[in-house]
Amino acid sequence: MEEIRNYVQGLGHEARAASRVLARAESGLKNLALSRIAEAIERNRESLLRENRKDLEAGNQNQLESALMDRLELTDSRIRAMMDGLADIAALTDPVGEISNLVYRPSGIQVGRMRVPLGVIGIIYESRPNVTADAAALCLKSGNACILRGGSEAIHSNRAIAVCIKEGLAEAGLPESCVQVVETTDRAAVGELLRMNEYVDVIVPRGGKGLIERVSRESRIQVIKHLDGICHVFIDDRADLGKASEIAFNAKTQRYGTCNTMETLLVAEKVAQIVLHGLGTRFINHGVELRGCLKTRELVSQCGAASEEDWATEYLAPVLSIRIVAGLDDAIEHINHYGSAHTDTIVTEDYTRARRFLREVDSSSVMVNASTRFADGFEYGLGAEIGISTDKLHARGPVGLEGLTSLKFIVLGDGHIRT
Amino acid sequence: MEEIRNYVQGLGHEARAASRVLARAESGLKNLALSRIAEAIERNRESLLRENRKDLEAGNQNQLESALMDRLELTDSRIRAMMDGLADIAALTDPVGEISNLVYRPSGIQVGRMRVPLGVIGIIYESRPNVTADAAALCLKSGNACILRGGSEAIHSNRAIAVCIKEGLAEAGLPESCVQVVETTDRAAVGELLRMNEYVDVIVPRGGKGLIERVSRESRIQVIKHLDGICHVFIDDRADLGKASEIAFNAKTQRYGTCNTMETLLVAEKVAQIVLHGLGTRFINHGVELRGCLKTRELVSQCGAASEEDWATEYLAPVLSIRIVAGLDDAIEHINHYGSAHTDTIVTEDYTRARRFLREVDSSSVMVNASTRFADGFEYGLGAEIGISTDKLHARGPVGLEGLTSLKFIVLGDGHIRT
Repeated sequence: MEEIRNYVQGLGHEARAASRVLARAESGLKNLALSRIAEAIERNRESLLRENRKDLEAGNQNQLESALMDRLELTDSRIRAMMDGLADIAALTDPVGEISNLVYRPSGIQVGRMRVPLGVIGIIYESRPNVTADAAALCLKSGNACILRGGSEAIHSNRAIAVCIKEGLAEAGLPESCVQVVETTDRAAVGELLRMNEYVDVIVPRGGKGLIERVSRESRIQVIKHLDGICHVFIDDRADLGKASEIAFNAKTQRYGTCNTMETLLVAEKVAQIVLHGLGTRFINHGVELRGCLKTRELVSQCGAASEEDWATEYLAPVLSIRIVAGLDDAIEHINHYGSAHTDTIVTEDYTRARRFLREVDSSSVMVNASTRFADGFEYGLGAEIGISTDKLHARGPVGLEGLTSLKFIVLGDGHIRT
Repeated sequence: MEEIRNYVQGLGHEARAASRVLARAESGLKNLALSRIAEAIERNRESLLRENRKDLEAGNQNQLESALMDRLELTDSRIRAMMDGLADIAALTDPVGEISNLVYRPSGIQVGRMRVPLGVIGIIYESRPNVTADAAALCLKSGNACILRGGSEAIHSNRAIAVCIKEGLAEAGLPESCVQVVETTDRAAVGELLRMNEYVDVIVPRGGKGLIERVSRESRIQVIKHLDGICHVFIDDRADLGKASEIAFNAKTQRYGTCNTMETLLVAEKVAQIVLHGLGTRFINHGVELRGCLKTRELVSQCGAASEEDWATEYLAPVLSIRIVAGLDDAIEHINHYGSAHTDTIVTEDYTRARRFLREVDSSSVMVNASTRFADGFEYGLGAEIGISTDKLHARGPVGLEGLTSLKFIVLGDGHIRT
């Protein structure tokens, strides 16, 4: 226990020192490191695959479920994707050092804000080893040192990726401790990481709800987190019903397991019959189980009953709850009550209702006439994302480079004193 | 205990409901409420003074120290200041609903960000009753409901101010529970407030370090906090020495008890003798106790010895530590190591050094050729501040209306689906 503590504290100490160097590093240097890391991954492809096989064999022995085994596996194309990811992040604009809103004040001083790195970021994630490279690259580009703690089932793969990262950093002349992988699978290391608030500025957990809840509960450091994605599509009675059906169908069926997938469909009473007649059948033919309110069940014969719990459930599966509402007010009320403040959309051609929905729905992404599936860092133009935040402080929605930075005030004077 | 719990939970429930109304309230309505609150304060002046006298009498009986008694007292001019504060906040631009960076993406959707209130803000403060009106006004204008828990020694005054606030809210047609004052002095209420994360989105403690540390330790809700203000002035060897002396003297002596007061003066070795010769005497004649490094003591005969602890101390008093450093690198190293990331300034005429200092000093306010005393919401043009944050996430430096808001993504489409 004492040994683990010293080990993790050592990582923290090194990370803090590295963060100071990285905070002042020029964009060109950070980009050079990113491309050298990609080259190191290319060069070490064989050893990456070999180390990954050790994890896969251990996973087989431990009878990991097949979805987990799939996420764990590195293939040539996944390695290529890691390298492409590094190149994409190198191509993004460096947010660090940007000065905005620099204005003269009545006293004569100029006051503005400069975008700065957060410092040291702790990332705790599960089995995908590619997260190691992605997360390291996002932190590096945003000028933050990071401590990465991946799943114990991917430990050999993560160590091998860490070797590539260290080679790339060293070749670019940056401290190797800019990116550190926790090289023990002892769970006490996570506890220690979450308490180390003198060395770590923010924790980003990536994984299932269990992981995120545990991290939030135990952490003494601020957490950027993503909990549920209970997303809604509301079809207003002034919707273009063709668009409405396409959006609702896409929001549910384009992918079932993603956090921005629709889980509840709300339909205005006036158009419920005509909308649900076709759309209900289409969902059922597509293999989606429907659970509806009483009125929905009167209109869609193959629809089961939704319980109170259904409205607050993120299925992540081909299941959809449907509720018929009186109109906009009811829809907003339902979303703000049962939703998870993730992503919600209204389908309407009515200007005033669209405007009200945008203002009054309290979610990290609020949309008009677009599929909830667009809530994504790439689609939003952030380039890449470290995650999607359902928190309200600091970052809401997809978190890209900017979400890993903060703003400090800068003041320029010419001998100004306060009187 | 159960009773307190139910009472505070009730406040939370009411606040959440009120926050939904307030989030969509138009600026005009919020401004009307602010001016009606000011009128109610004017109208109830006598009862405010009467209730305040109860607190003062209790304070006398409990032998409160005189500084506390002074902060507790309401006078005609302090009541006038509260009313002026309300008018000032009404005059500020409403940040809520502002849409920025709305751009078309390759998919055809438009993506932008809308500024939104945080929701419910819990404010925990000490004896000054005027904070009740100030904090309520800032929360109201930024569209947030708030729960205010002032010091128990000011309970009668705070209740009386709460009556005025409720009258003003009601006259404007806003829910009275937009602003709620905790009307019990039981300390268990604070603990309950800090745990109520389903109803409260952020906690802002205002007061001494003891209060802030306790709140940070106990809170299960994110905290916007201000810890130490260990501020530095670094006099570079390329400084205009006239400006340097004025800035250093102003930063220390304009007020001793404020968080943006200089606590440590760093002087480049090359100019130490000439700078400290005059400035040392000036401080001593002004009654400032000096504690210096060895080299400083060789130059300033009346300077005591600074211990390691001095470099990390916020005196809030006429005491100043002085260290002679080799140059810019040493100064930055000292500030980032011993400072509290609050406010630090360089005095120099050198372009490159000024540029480096701005980038490399990791504090919430970084200045060139200006007194640290400028770190203030009014001086920065924020209009008013709820506090100064030394945190890195969400808000750094003076926190005004914008710091009480967040950004959500908005997406506008025309039937767009993801493929």
